[in-house]
Amino acid sequence: MILEIADIRIQPGQQAAFEAAIRQGLATVLSRARGFRGASLHHGIESPERYVLQVQWDTLEDHTEGFRGSPLFTEWRGLIGGFFAGAPLVEHFTLPPLATA
Amino acid sequence: MILEIADIRIQPGQQAAFEAAIRQGLATVLSRARGFRGASLHHGIESPERYVLQVQWDTLEDHTEGFRGSPLFTEWRGLIGGFFAGAPLVEHFTLPPLATA
Repeated sequence: MILEIADIRIQPGQQAAFEAAIRQGLATVLSRARGFRGASLHHGIESPERYVLQVQWDTLEDHTEGFRGSPLFTEWRGLIGGFFAGAPLVEHFTLPPLATA
Repeated sequence: MILEIADIRIQPGQQAAFEAAIRQGLATVLSRARGFRGASLHHGIESPERYVLQVQWDTLEDHTEGFRGSPLFTEWRGLIGGFFAGAPLVEHFTLPPLATA
């Protein structure tokens, strides 16, 4: 498994609507993607327009090729793209070789 | 609980030494901090000098005041600060109101 970390800035004042859209997108779109293993959304304390979305995928290609190349990506961006203040910064990471409980 | 996300860039070629230093720092320093609840380190796939360290704290102040104001912070930075290619970007986030397994 790998971890996608998406650093997102939304337009001011849209937090509640954005969170509702993400909730809908997770339940109805992302959860149908092949290789999707789970996601969590974190809201910035210092930067209230900042969110970090973390998604676990079986493989890097499940996200970069499978999901992004599928109609699901169009649906997903249709739900949440309108809230973005700029292009999200998205990269992929190892799941922790180093973790403490 | 809150989540600290630290975005770290290290100097090229220092991955193994940095990971060993972080491992030591987690075991001997961070784990002794009041309010520390766990941590995980993620290594960048697209950006091999990039790491994301995620730390769970009981409260924001456990990190920003308690830990940063304690001698433990000096110990911690003494272990890992020499690897940084620049100042880490550190902010704090809510634990997920939205999470899927």
